[in-house]
Amino acid sequence: MTYAAGRHFLQIPGPTNVPDVVLRAMSAATIDHRGPEFQELAKQLLHDVKPVFGTTNPVVIYPATGTGAWEAALTNTLSPGDTVLAFETGHFATLWQEMARGLGLHVDFVPGDWRHGASPEVVVERLLADTKHRIKAVCVVHNETSTGVTSRVPEIRAAIDAAEHPALLLVDTISSLGSIDYRHDEWGVDVTVAGSQKGLMLPPGMSFNAISDKALNAAKTACLPKIFWDWGPMLTANERGFFPYTPNTNLMYGLREALRLLYDEGLENVFARHARHAAATRAAVRGWGLEVLCEDEREHSGALTAVLVPEGIDADKVRAIILDRFDMSLGAGLGKLAGKIFRIGHLGAFNDLTLAGTLAGVQMGLTLAGAPADPRGLQDALELLQND
Amino acid sequence: MTYAAGRHFLQIPGPTNVPDVVLRAMSAATIDHRGPEFQELAKQLLHDVKPVFGTTNPVVIYPATGTGAWEAALTNTLSPGDTVLAFETGHFATLWQEMARGLGLHVDFVPGDWRHGASPEVVVERLLADTKHRIKAVCVVHNETSTGVTSRVPEIRAAIDAAEHPALLLVDTISSLGSIDYRHDEWGVDVTVAGSQKGLMLPPGMSFNAISDKALNAAKTACLPKIFWDWGPMLTANERGFFPYTPNTNLMYGLREALRLLYDEGLENVFARHARHAAATRAAVRGWGLEVLCEDEREHSGALTAVLVPEGIDADKVRAIILDRFDMSLGAGLGKLAGKIFRIGHLGAFNDLTLAGTLAGVQMGLTLAGAPADPRGLQDALELLQND
Amino acid sequence: MTYAAGRHFLQIPGPTNVPDVVLRAMSAATIDHRGPEFQELAKQLLHDVKPVFGTTNPVVIYPATGTGAWEAALTNTLSPGDTVLAFETGHFATLWQEMARGLGLHVDFVPGDWRHGASPEVVVERLLADTKHRIKAVCVVHNETSTGVTSRVPEIRAAIDAAEHPALLLVDTISSLGSIDYRHDEWGVDVTVAGSQKGLMLPPGMSFNAISDKALNAAKTACLPKIFWDWGPMLTANERGFFPYTPNTNLMYGLREALRLLYDEGLENVFARHARHAAATRAAVRGWGLEVLCEDEREHSGALTAVLVPEGIDADKVRAIILDRFDMSLGAGLGKLAGKIFRIGHLGAFNDLTLAGTLAGVQMGLTLAGAPADPRGLQDALELLQND
Amino acid sequence: MTYAAGRHFLQIPGPTNVPDVVLRAMSAATIDHRGPEFQELAKQLLHDVKPVFGTTNPVVIYPATGTGAWEAALTNTLSPGDTVLAFETGHFATLWQEMARGLGLHVDFVPGDWRHGASPEVVVERLLADTKHRIKAVCVVHNETSTGVTSRVPEIRAAIDAAEHPALLLVDTISSLGSIDYRHDEWGVDVTVAGSQKGLMLPPGMSFNAISDKALNAAKTACLPKIFWDWGPMLTANERGFFPYTPNTNLMYGLREALRLLYDEGLENVFARHARHAAATRAAVRGWGLEVLCEDEREHSGALTAVLVPEGIDADKVRAIILDRFDMSLGAGLGKLAGKIFRIGHLGAFNDLTLAGTLAGVQMGLTLAGAPADPRGLQDALELLQND
Repeated sequence: MTYAAGRHFLQIPGPTNVPDVVLRAMSAATIDHRGPEFQELAKQLLHDVKPVFGTTNPVVIYPATGTGAWEAALTNTLSPGDTVLAFETGHFATLWQEMARGLGLHVDFVPGDWRHGASPEVVVERLLADTKHRIKAVCVVHNETSTGVTSRVPEIRAAIDAAEHPALLLVDTISSLGSIDYRHDEWGVDVTVAGSQKGLMLPPGMSFNAISDKALNAAKTACLPKIFWDWGPMLTANERGFFPYTPNTNLMYGLREALRLLYDEGLENVFARHARHAAATRAAVRGWGLEVLCEDEREHSGALTAVLVPEGIDADKVRAIILDRFDMSLGAGLGKLAGKIFRIGHLGAFNDLTLAGTLAGVQMGLTLAGAPADPRGLQDALELLQND
Repeated sequence: MTYAAGRHFLQIPGPTNVPDVVLRAMSAATIDHRGPEFQELAKQLLHDVKPVFGTTNPVVIYPATGTGAWEAALTNTLSPGDTVLAFETGHFATLWQEMARGLGLHVDFVPGDWRHGASPEVVVERLLADTKHRIKAVCVVHNETSTGVTSRVPEIRAAIDAAEHPALLLVDTISSLGSIDYRHDEWGVDVTVAGSQKGLMLPPGMSFNAISDKALNAAKTACLPKIFWDWGPMLTANERGFFPYTPNTNLMYGLREALRLLYDEGLENVFARHARHAAATRAAVRGWGLEVLCEDEREHSGALTAVLVPEGIDADKVRAIILDRFDMSLGAGLGKLAGKIFRIGHLGAFNDLTLAGTLAGVQMGLTLAGAPADPRGLQDALELLQND
Repeated sequence: MTYAAGRHFLQIPGPTNVPDVVLRAMSAATIDHRGPEFQELAKQLLHDVKPVFGTTNPVVIYPATGTGAWEAALTNTLSPGDTVLAFETGHFATLWQEMARGLGLHVDFVPGDWRHGASPEVVVERLLADTKHRIKAVCVVHNETSTGVTSRVPEIRAAIDAAEHPALLLVDTISSLGSIDYRHDEWGVDVTVAGSQKGLMLPPGMSFNAISDKALNAAKTACLPKIFWDWGPMLTANERGFFPYTPNTNLMYGLREALRLLYDEGLENVFARHARHAAATRAAVRGWGLEVLCEDEREHSGALTAVLVPEGIDADKVRAIILDRFDMSLGAGLGKLAGKIFRIGHLGAFNDLTLAGTLAGVQMGLTLAGAPADPRGLQDALELLQND
Repeated sequence: MTYAAGRHFLQIPGPTNVPDVVLRAMSAATIDHRGPEFQELAKQLLHDVKPVFGTTNPVVIYPATGTGAWEAALTNTLSPGDTVLAFETGHFATLWQEMARGLGLHVDFVPGDWRHGASPEVVVERLLADTKHRIKAVCVVHNETSTGVTSRVPEIRAAIDAAEHPALLLVDTISSLGSIDYRHDEWGVDVTVAGSQKGLMLPPGMSFNAISDKALNAAKTACLPKIFWDWGPMLTANERGFFPYTPNTNLMYGLREALRLLYDEGLENVFARHARHAAATRAAVRGWGLEVLCEDEREHSGALTAVLVPEGIDADKVRAIILDRFDMSLGAGLGKLAGKIFRIGHLGAFNDLTLAGTLAGVQMGLTLAGAPADPRGLQDALELLQND
């Protein structure tokens, strides 16, 4: 790679920009994972990680990326042949249900247009129809990283309750945790799946399961095979501040620092900051004369914004021009959205001027790619940032 | 923690001391794992990682710790009900076969005294007896981290061949790779399991499977469920320099640097350095009047040395005194060796004077713990280092 | 300090944003400054630092900040009672001549309005008038960090030559070196003074003197007292790759990396990048309806732009609002410009989108401070960046 | 450089081993040295640095190495033609008085054998003889880095008082501060000169003057020229948390961390640790059958030990062998001790096992160099470490 002056703009919806202080924390010497210093670290982290999930229940920390935490959520709570209800909200929801099928589960997969979240109405309908309670879990992706649509988890919880159905509620918060308001306990979520590399502002390599009592109970009889992902030995070892196998110590140093940053800023402030940047980004998109992918005002993501490019323009070409000319990475359209959208990540360690630079880069890149963007876009975003 | 002046001596048999240059490499900014810069990095690493395994075949890199790579080796090659032949060489061999049982496999577990490696003679015997070829895999831990005994893999290979048995050979090299001579291709190993945090001189969080053609073939019909660990999508994505899910980018930066260090030193020199430090350590142990756990001269580990403490002495108390007084971590006796041994790690980024400090600490600690160590121990070790 | 999310915009005209790779290089372990590894490093650096000065003559590296290198330039070439010709181009030119007076030199200080560079015409005039050659040196600040005005050094050289005057030419390039085209040898400069913390993209703490043969000759008779700054022992020790006293080794690691970045990008490209960002910044200033301090089109700085705020507005209040609201540091008006201007640094490790964010922040900040900035400003800058 | 496995043993008497946490602190982003965050940092440091000097008076922090702080001590308190009393305690004392001469001072230089500290008896004698009070300052090197001899500053203070002489007491603590008990106020020192790269555990590049009221008073009339080193503008700017010129911000981050480490350990404990390691080192030297350079039991240095090699052995060859074979740097004999001694640094971030490794390396190296060292040396040292 030749040197590109200045700092790369990593504006994909994760991995996000890792604060220097977190990277530095991670470069401390690795310690004995069976010694007292580690024990103290682990106990602290297992305690301190809970508020960002909005839980007082256990949170399991895996030394593995988010896809593993998906697998853990399924294998610890379900048995071969069980049915799960899932929603085609986008690429990642589709992958998760594919995983479920691959593990030997049945999936009731509700089709979607990738522009809306999971429908609470459909949840009620499907669960009411499931009089034999074959559906053991409802799987929802809180924030669809592929579309910038945030499903309304509290309404889905209410729907399950309305249907008086015993299904577990499993929620993927990989790209929402630490960026968008989330409350594991209050919303009655049974397993929350999360990863390190988005709102938690860490490099990838660590993932999480927050677990309700109901899920812990389900785990007693769940018989999908699992060893690495097994909650049992993990929770037992965690009680003493240890792990059943080698943890990834250096990412734990980073987590300690990242949690400190989040709590110092205040979770309320963190969520408000993300919402404000998302609003400014939508103002820019509309000012440019373009369309935001998400169609429901209640479901706009605070973490990323997916932008539909005009007919005849290849979104990947826009991205390539922006990378080449302005050293900024944007998210590609995934799956059936390939080439039709690009995604602007505005989550994690991020601020007004980085957003301004980001939007300026998109505005220039669109124009260079032959999709002239009205400069009103950036101007509208700045007015919002300035006045809000 | 109060401040302990100077540098901690991390002399457990892994995680090992990570070179500063590797830690610094890991603190570079995380990049887009779908972009061209990442692609170049991944292609380079997937290529450059092969020599340390002694293979020209594919090596899969998991963003997860070593236990996961164990699970990957089993789930990608075997089906429920298959039998594996395993050897009770120590704690980790025991755990691996427990995992196999947990995954629904049958295990023919050959008992051992934790002072010897896997027996090639028993391999021949068991495989010849298995006329119906129910044994699908022979599982061997190359270097037993819990005992400091290195199994003779080439002789086990020869034993399988002598028995004309089609079983796969799965080898755990977690604490040998990059420290003790190892040759995946030449020795006819089918799956080599490895981790980042030992001879590769990285923090924990990354693990590996090197895969023979025969194993790739077995994977086509293996039907243990696996998604995260599945070689298939991994190998396909790797061909283009990508991963089927988020990789742990920052550890990959570290791997690039660690491989550079190993290859700059030269693998032959790396292995010779470890062997020499192991010999000096054994000289010390014997000079102190103590016994090395490993009983077979052909099987002494180059990576660690397990030391039997005298009757009436609690090895964990020795370790606690050494940690408290000299800020050095040693490995505990695991499983049935708890309290009876301690383990000295002399692997990874390590040199003569750090070994001298290590052995001095053990010598003083033994004495303080009421197990007077003859100062001849350190002296003999130094003579070896000085003259060899 | 409470945590401010995201990265601070350090847009003062130095210290500049230090690339992560340079910071990481600086965090390597300190080595023996009398050993062979250091010797190799020093020899390499003393060689490699020359091209950025445009010289093949010696460059002295001081383990001290830039003010020291000013003192070195004077004390090594002059004697008590000598006269120097200096120009009131701004705050730093004023400080430098004050230093000269403090050291016992006479200063012929040509008054200036802080909006123009040193006048070649006045140089000719003063030197021609100095028939007795009492003027021993002409001191010029190449790029006035306090005003954003770049003096035309080649024309000043020509002026000295035209006057056939033997005075030395001493040039301060603290905020131009590595950002604005500069040629010590070709322009006949005798001592070039530079620092680490601007275009060289290092933290502060290191400074330089590039020295012509004529200056080396002058040093033989110069009798201002100096020990720390004395070129003699430095040049002698440097020949063998050493220093006469302890050097600041870790900044030298950083210098090695920073030079690599500059040469990889290519000095021509580095200068062009800075000029382009300066042009975009001026476009913004004018688009906002404001005035650039520098009045001569030939003298606009590539490194920073000083902006006059409207009558009745306190420039320091604008800066305070921008720091508070947008986490960006801008340069204050210094000396007699205090409160009347602010300075935008666009030098060092910098790129288009960071400039866009910077200008967006200034535009919003001006408006918030009651000096409404026409959004045309940012728009014009982006058009230039986009099309140029 | 080819890669040498493991960590280099940097056992010169400074620069010392910098703790990783200090190196990491130094790699934080450089901030605006005129902004509020810097102001807070500077105020804190200017306050927190005082206890390690044992003073409540001002301490000036120079962004330059220790030689500069020597020059500052002289130029701020003395005038051309003034006389200073100095002692030939070793290489650095000799260099300091050469500097004084070079600055135009007269030096009354008391000859010495480089094996003893400054003599309080001679101080009394010379000062009593100086009835006209031409001696304006007594210059003492607290810990002679070239010899491992620590002068008895309190006795020298008492000697000055006994002579009822008004001379200032200037003390170089470059290699003692933060390692050997030192009390600027209690001992009535007027200027204490210190550097960052020894007991303060920082890389080189920062130096200090602690200043008594009497010295501040002397500064009012001292007329040696100085600008960069001038206390006046420094103290004025420091009052508000700023500097008269660019400070070296990143080393200040390191200083904050290093002071935290020292105060967390407790200065008493720090001094005791150094004294213990020095005693163990002397035990080793004597056990090897060699002689410690320092001849007065009251003057052994806690920071380093100089070892006389046997007749016929070249100490530099011993050092070269140790560097080559064991990757350890030791200090050379300087000036008239070249080739006759080597110096073992045991200061800064250092602990028992690193000392054990260090002494093991020396023992082996001596033997390899043809100066067989009795293994009793290391053994005696370990016994001391073990029992003390």
